[in-house]
Amino acid sequence: MKCKKCGRPASIKLVVYNLKLCDKHFLEFIESRVENAIKKFKMFTRKDRILVAVSGGKDSMVLWYILVKLGYNADGLFIKLGHDYQVSPAYEKVKKLSDMLNRPLIIEDATEYLYGLSTFEAAKILRRPACSFCGMVKRYLMNKAAVENDYDVLVTGHNLDDEATVLLGNILHWQTGYITRSYPVLEKTHEKFVKKAKPLVLNYEEHIKLYAKKRGIDFLPTSCPFSLGATSKIYKNIIRQLEDEQRGITLSFYLGYLREKENIFKIEENTPQLHSCEVCGYPTTAKVCSFCRSRRRLQEKLERKNSI
Amino acid sequence: MKCKKCGRPASIKLVVYNLKLCDKHFLEFIESRVENAIKKFKMFTRKDRILVAVSGGKDSMVLWYILVKLGYNADGLFIKLGHDYQVSPAYEKVKKLSDMLNRPLIIEDATEYLYGLSTFEAAKILRRPACSFCGMVKRYLMNKAAVENDYDVLVTGHNLDDEATVLLGNILHWQTGYITRSYPVLEKTHEKFVKKAKPLVLNYEEHIKLYAKKRGIDFLPTSCPFSLGATSKIYKNIIRQLEDEQRGITLSFYLGYLREKENIFKIEENTPQLHSCEVCGYPTTAKVCSFCRSRRRLQEKLERKNSI
Repeated sequence: MKCKKCGRPASIKLVVYNLKLCDKHFLEFIESRVENAIKKFKMFTRKDRILVAVSGGKDSMVLWYILVKLGYNADGLFIKLGHDYQVSPAYEKVKKLSDMLNRPLIIEDATEYLYGLSTFEAAKILRRPACSFCGMVKRYLMNKAAVENDYDVLVTGHNLDDEATVLLGNILHWQTGYITRSYPVLEKTHEKFVKKAKPLVLNYEEHIKLYAKKRGIDFLPTSCPFSLGATSKIYKNIIRQLEDEQRGITLSFYLGYLREKENIFKIEENTPQLHSCEVCGYPTTAKVCSFCRSRRRLQEKLERKNSI
Repeated sequence: MKCKKCGRPASIKLVVYNLKLCDKHFLEFIESRVENAIKKFKMFTRKDRILVAVSGGKDSMVLWYILVKLGYNADGLFIKLGHDYQVSPAYEKVKKLSDMLNRPLIIEDATEYLYGLSTFEAAKILRRPACSFCGMVKRYLMNKAAVENDYDVLVTGHNLDDEATVLLGNILHWQTGYITRSYPVLEKTHEKFVKKAKPLVLNYEEHIKLYAKKRGIDFLPTSCPFSLGATSKIYKNIIRQLEDEQRGITLSFYLGYLREKENIFKIEENTPQLHSCEVCGYPTTAKVCSFCRSRRRLQEKLERKNSI
């Protein structure tokens, strides 16, 4: 088995691309797919200040590493979602990478906004599904950190499998708005809504994992302990099964969607207008944003609890 | 456990409808869903002459039984796809039902059109995938039999799982034309293209099977021995898995599609124009229909074989 690029012994066979590569050219191949996504979807340039949301998992860690390696001006953002015992292993990994890359790491502490509670504890009190609540908090704080620190774009580690999974779920439930608005880039549409981008959308999750291992990037191997029953896991399993049966279907499903969406779908031009939240000033489609509404409800619940 | 309709002991729990029923009311429930589909999608009336394509499998056998029971003027059509040893068990079951219902059974013999070969043998010689070739032959002969015998509508036993499976496959591959044209009814658009309908689209496959058993309808339990590797089986497994995880999703996925398709999808108004095949006169989008083209190619192959 020979590397297709250099003819030396290959160490990896990427069945989906029908490509045998040595370690060096595998790493370059993954990096080139990130660069391609950045260019293809006009995500950002080397002049932009980029903030990478880094959780400690393989995707965001690899993303930060690759962006810095490709010469982008990318800093890290870590969001503390819980108390020390829950987050310290993740933080340690992220801090280590920050030191290794010699790039700054911004820290946002979600518990500060949730009256000292972790997102999981707050969701429980609010009787909200943990994943959707935690996702809302993360999205809010990621955007806020990027805006306050004057970044041009916030990037996240969503990979191809993630995007195909979300797309499948939205189609199975015919979530029309979500189907047609899904894209690897979200433009700035409000002075406090930073541009978002997902530079890993052309890379399979298993290849990102392999990249992390080959580069010796020390990531947190476990996924969130609270997401075990999440619906999205069902859809991700389905996507993986399909990929096992029909090599390449994840990529062709997702790219086919991006290519054909304007031919296939009626795209609503009147996407919901964003105003400023009356409480915090960050964008919302309502009067008060869901982050502030949750905080208010949480405060009420806690006061009621304490007064009993 | 009590029957929701009559309060007597229930024998069946239909989890997806949150419904416990006795045998009698289960049978009525399935029949009413067939009647609902016929009305909802304007399939046919009791004045129409209906031809049911019956394979010997549970779906088409149950469909014929229910249509006659509901008072529709429905005859059977059986298509011989191969030689006696392959088809006789299926034919026996269909003949038995025809006798029991006291309704005529039309027989079309595919081998007569394929120079004595079964559809499987012909597909092999033509190097065509067995399932798609056999499907094409069946569709052609079903339509031909309905037209020649002056029926108003041809009905087939496609159930909810079948339709959701096809829809999922078409979406995964973004087969735009197929996605938007899929519907439980196909209107007559050419003098030799009979109206088509699928009255079982509101019923889950497992409920149809249960209906057949409760009614003592003797069906062929095995699926086609040649379809084992078919792609559609992969998608059907996916649909079943989703249903196991999220009860009702098959129905909501398919009904959501029917309800939302005009809001979600750009529907091409210029559906391909049907002309008459230069050889047989039946509708085609080309000059010569694919049935006649296959027959011609088959003849050439057989002649070459014999001349060697």
